[in-house]
Amino acid sequence: MSTADATETALAAGGDVLVVFTPSGRRGRVARGTTVLQAARELGVDLDSVCGGRAICGRCQVTLSEGSFPKHGIESRPEHLSDFGGNEVDYHAVTGLAQSRRLGCSARLLGDAVIDVPPESQVHRQVIRKRTEVHDLAVDPLVHLHVVEVSPPNMHEAVSDLRRLEEELEFEWALTGLSCDPQVLGKLQAVMREGNWQVTVAVFQQREIIAIWPGYHNTALGLAVDVGSTTIAMHLIELTSGQSLASVGRMNPQIRFGEDLMSRVSYVMMHPGSEQDMSRVVRQTLTELVAQVCQETDSNVDDILDCAFVGNPIMHHLLLGFSPVELGGAPFALATDSAITMPAHELNLGLNRGARCYVLPCIAGHVGADCAAVVLSEAPYLRKEMTLLVDIGTNAEIVLGNRDRLLAASSPTGPAFEGAQISGGQRAAPGAIERVRIDRETLEPRFRVIGCDLWSDDPGFEQAVATVGISGICGSGIIEVVAEMYLAGILSSDGVIDGNLSQYSARVIADGRTFAFVLHKGDITVTVTQNDVRAIQLAKAALYAGIRLLMDKLGVEEIDRIRLAGAFGSHIDVKYAMVLGLIPDCELGNVTSAGNAAGSGAHIALVDVNARREIEKEIRKIEKIETAVESRFQEHFVEAMAIPHKSAQFAQLSKAVTWPTRITGAKTQALTGTRRRRRR
Amino acid sequence: MSTADATETALAAGGDVLVVFTPSGRRGRVARGTTVLQAARELGVDLDSVCGGRAICGRCQVTLSEGSFPKHGIESRPEHLSDFGGNEVDYHAVTGLAQSRRLGCSARLLGDAVIDVPPESQVHRQVIRKRTEVHDLAVDPLVHLHVVEVSPPNMHEAVSDLRRLEEELEFEWALTGLSCDPQVLGKLQAVMREGNWQVTVAVFQQREIIAIWPGYHNTALGLAVDVGSTTIAMHLIELTSGQSLASVGRMNPQIRFGEDLMSRVSYVMMHPGSEQDMSRVVRQTLTELVAQVCQETDSNVDDILDCAFVGNPIMHHLLLGFSPVELGGAPFALATDSAITMPAHELNLGLNRGARCYVLPCIAGHVGADCAAVVLSEAPYLRKEMTLLVDIGTNAEIVLGNRDRLLAASSPTGPAFEGAQISGGQRAAPGAIERVRIDRETLEPRFRVIGCDLWSDDPGFEQAVATVGISGICGSGIIEVVAEMYLAGILSSDGVIDGNLSQYSARVIADGRTFAFVLHKGDITVTVTQNDVRAIQLAKAALYAGIRLLMDKLGVEEIDRIRLAGAFGSHIDVKYAMVLGLIPDCELGNVTSAGNAAGSGAHIALVDVNARREIEKEIRKIEKIETAVESRFQEHFVEAMAIPHKSAQFAQLSKAVTWPTRITGAKTQALTGTRRRRRR
Repeated sequence: MSTADATETALAAGGDVLVVFTPSGRRGRVARGTTVLQAARELGVDLDSVCGGRAICGRCQVTLSEGSFPKHGIESRPEHLSDFGGNEVDYHAVTGLAQSRRLGCSARLLGDAVIDVPPESQVHRQVIRKRTEVHDLAVDPLVHLHVVEVSPPNMHEAVSDLRRLEEELEFEWALTGLSCDPQVLGKLQAVMREGNWQVTVAVFQQREIIAIWPGYHNTALGLAVDVGSTTIAMHLIELTSGQSLASVGRMNPQIRFGEDLMSRVSYVMMHPGSEQDMSRVVRQTLTELVAQVCQETDSNVDDILDCAFVGNPIMHHLLLGFSPVELGGAPFALATDSAITMPAHELNLGLNRGARCYVLPCIAGHVGADCAAVVLSEAPYLRKEMTLLVDIGTNAEIVLGNRDRLLAASSPTGPAFEGAQISGGQRAAPGAIERVRIDRETLEPRFRVIGCDLWSDDPGFEQAVATVGISGICGSGIIEVVAEMYLAGILSSDGVIDGNLSQYSARVIADGRTFAFVLHKGDITVTVTQNDVRAIQLAKAALYAGIRLLMDKLGVEEIDRIRLAGAFGSHIDVKYAMVLGLIPDCELGNVTSAGNAAGSGAHIALVDVNARREIEKEIRKIEKIETAVESRFQEHFVEAMAIPHKSAQFAQLSKAVTWPTRITGAKTQALTGTRRRRRR
Repeated sequence: MSTADATETALAAGGDVLVVFTPSGRRGRVARGTTVLQAARELGVDLDSVCGGRAICGRCQVTLSEGSFPKHGIESRPEHLSDFGGNEVDYHAVTGLAQSRRLGCSARLLGDAVIDVPPESQVHRQVIRKRTEVHDLAVDPLVHLHVVEVSPPNMHEAVSDLRRLEEELEFEWALTGLSCDPQVLGKLQAVMREGNWQVTVAVFQQREIIAIWPGYHNTALGLAVDVGSTTIAMHLIELTSGQSLASVGRMNPQIRFGEDLMSRVSYVMMHPGSEQDMSRVVRQTLTELVAQVCQETDSNVDDILDCAFVGNPIMHHLLLGFSPVELGGAPFALATDSAITMPAHELNLGLNRGARCYVLPCIAGHVGADCAAVVLSEAPYLRKEMTLLVDIGTNAEIVLGNRDRLLAASSPTGPAFEGAQISGGQRAAPGAIERVRIDRETLEPRFRVIGCDLWSDDPGFEQAVATVGISGICGSGIIEVVAEMYLAGILSSDGVIDGNLSQYSARVIADGRTFAFVLHKGDITVTVTQNDVRAIQLAKAALYAGIRLLMDKLGVEEIDRIRLAGAFGSHIDVKYAMVLGLIPDCELGNVTSAGNAAGSGAHIALVDVNARREIEKEIRKIEKIETAVESRFQEHFVEAMAIPHKSAQFAQLSKAVTWPTRITGAKTQALTGTRRRRRR
């Protein structure tokens, strides 16, 4: 008997068959001959489909994992599914189907069967929510594509094109009560005719038709955007898979109005209405980035249907065209601390007119949507461990707590950790000194520069560094040089550069009434002045005091894990951060970089509707602490000025950061006496 | 005992009092000393207030209609309400309070009382829904103003300005789950501070904050707009009272693309994309009309918060920026037949960015939102009588039925009734001949011209008409001249001009192979040609056939009332319409003008949310008849070409329209013999 005959015979038998879907475990009886896709729908199984069963999209792929399981009263049949054929052959020829894969819309159930739905065929991916690993991502986007074939209009029934489309969307996709973006309505008729009555629509939140294409369309993209005061980063993401296709970045053009946040706010205070100019330039840059990321990936800008934005409160307000002046002074009132969902065209980014955008909520006047994104990405509210999240920018945003309780604050660190307001300071960019070691005996420093893999005393360093040059010192370099200066005895515990050493080393020089340490001499000379040390002391004391204040509020003395977010967190050597006393004691192995957690949070919010609801809910529960009104903050601040900060781990840490085993010259023996004396 | 003492004494007594509100009849007990406004809220009585009890808005005015009604167990007290004083004295000094009126927010209940809430103090006016009289209007607008005092921000609680505003709106006005238009968010902070934490917000549908003003603001305006193919009419309306403040109108600038609807559609077909130009010019004119109506009424454009638009399907599509090409040919598919609610800025009218707009639904490809507005205004679906609504434009939109069943169709009358495609035809404008009488003996015509009260044979007519001139003949003039030509024997029953009469009267002249009637000789000569008569015959036959088709479908032979909407309906003498057979037989007294019913419908939809839901629901129930596919339509059409159409009322009617009693010269005796002969 041929297979076609077998299918016929099976169908002729009529009746129903038992089908079990894995991994959901849903099961039930359906009429023999039902397609797997239809059976999945009847039984409420999460099986994807964009084309609605037309064997075009390939989203409904399944595997027969078992057939003809014995069951009382039902004859065991060898035929579980109809033969691979027809539409599947065509699809396989054009697109290719992996071994043993079937199209759910084409394969028909002829006998009892267990059908496995692989993860990529599920609309709502069943992922373990371990979001501290950004690689695990729940994908449940707000925008879905649906292909429908609409009946043509006829003279006998006056039913508008939109209504016939809506009726089909209800019939095929169970979408009811849809509204339609006016922009889509404007091209609806032409598109329906161009597609010969087959169209693909993008539906936002099962509520609104926001885009339409003729025929079958399979691409829905989104943007995750982190608007930093220095850098704007944009990620182009496939909404259906959640995968990032490309990332682009550019300097924030608002820098022309002010280098740091506060100077931009001051600018607006001095030039009322200039917030509109700042909005315009940042949106213009976003528009250019959209074009760039589309060009790099050969994507169509009209396929971008959703965006998620994060940024600190001032960037948040300026992106949206709100004046940031209230954020420039007490009581630092936000315009809103709710998430914002709106048409993207409000931001004028040149996207598809129906595209939507989502701006994550700010937490407080100093704790922004970027911090909310970090919280979403790190999800401390799901953990038992007491977790500290630190995101260092112009201010440090601090979140401390666990699933029971979460506190947030901002510490006024100033921009020293970003390399600003430091004499040789600069941003972490090629040419910046990022690593420093000082010989305990000779006081000679060696360093590494971003963009060059060699240490400054390695052979060939000069040639290697020639292309990037040495232009200054960045945040992590400053942390290290100050810590090393202390460990080498150049700095006292209260942060004074020891002028006596100028007798022994040309590196220590007079600088007015105080002294300075010459880190590098060249086209550009990089020195660490007494003021620089003070700036770092103030910054690290502010950060530590903020963290300590939250620990007091929570009544904890121990922190289980520390996650450092952002560029600073990626570059810094945590040992030095602990030597200097930026962060409280914690197992070194539990202090880790969270990478670009704000960007990850935007990515998560972009592709998962549940994540949006989750962070909106969690943000409301976070207790906001305003350091400026807490007297304990001042106390902690004063205490934390010393170097090192009294740390149980200091001995261990200072060992960890001593000069590496590489032997240094012993020619500075002369200094030893003096230095031992100072080390009393 | 002084009155103040009496109040104190009453309050000291504590306990509660019984209060009855009229006309609602709601009653209940409230604590002694409760304000009337608070009592109304507790008991669910509809008592308005914008200022939330601050004695500013004066919306909560009430009258004490009875006090101290005897009741068992409660001592009868002379004091029912606290004395007129404090806030009321201030309000009276500034704004004035009518005799016996009290402010509900200030007057406190000291004893049992019956309180009357006058209609103007009710949010939802209790009106009898007899909307066939446009003067009775239910007022329940979608936008409401609310005054609140928000607490200033403080350092100890990081709560955003929007959230504190929302909390106050919930506390004072029970508004929950509000969203906020991004545009409002942008100015929220400045406005709250400018108003020293007192602001007025406009809330759309208890759902979204769409506008905000510092301090107390009491004006909410709306626009009702009828976008006609010839004329655009705009009415500025106070949303709270429903009253019209002013009306302005202007020619539709799309006329430069085509005189009538079909020529505009043809233009778009010939010039793809030009629908955008047509949208732009109509929106530009709307923008200018907004400025004009605001200037005339000294209104602030930012106070306009809602608009309602009506128009025929092609005007509807062009207003919204949709291409009308599908409406230019079978099967005449609308883009949408749903109502559209959207931000008004989608239409670019220069309104407050938060303003909303509502576009009434179209019914079918030829039956537009203007017809929906007529249906809303006339509400045949509420009536027992079989009602015929006729709105004549380029096509005639016809609605027939009653509360049981309603049918709609469009008849292809062409533009003849509008004076187009008639040799001397023009729109109803100054200088157009609108009334015509022809002497049965002499065949000499007399006429009246729009803009001049005299008949053409009245003394002083020439001087009186000099300022406007005589420029042509409008729709009603054509109807009358054709009917009079028939009655005077110039036209045969099948519509042929009798060339023999050229021997007897210089008014009948040869015109190629046919003949014409010279109505007026002057700078511009107005003649009625055989082609003109044919055009009117075709138009009237189309209209009649459409009506007759609907009567067949409904199975009725009698129509109880006929309402003629629009300019044509206002100008036409219904007797002549019936002589010519435009409309079926009906008691003459029951054939009336519906005035500007489309504009009234827009007005109703603007100020009453329930009316919007009502017309959306009723429109869906209307049965749409496409005349083009009905063979019966052709039959009726052919039958209806004759003049007069066989009418039971013809004899009576022809008497009604004979030459008035004024005696005419007898000098045309010579003609009599011939004419009698023709009248066999």
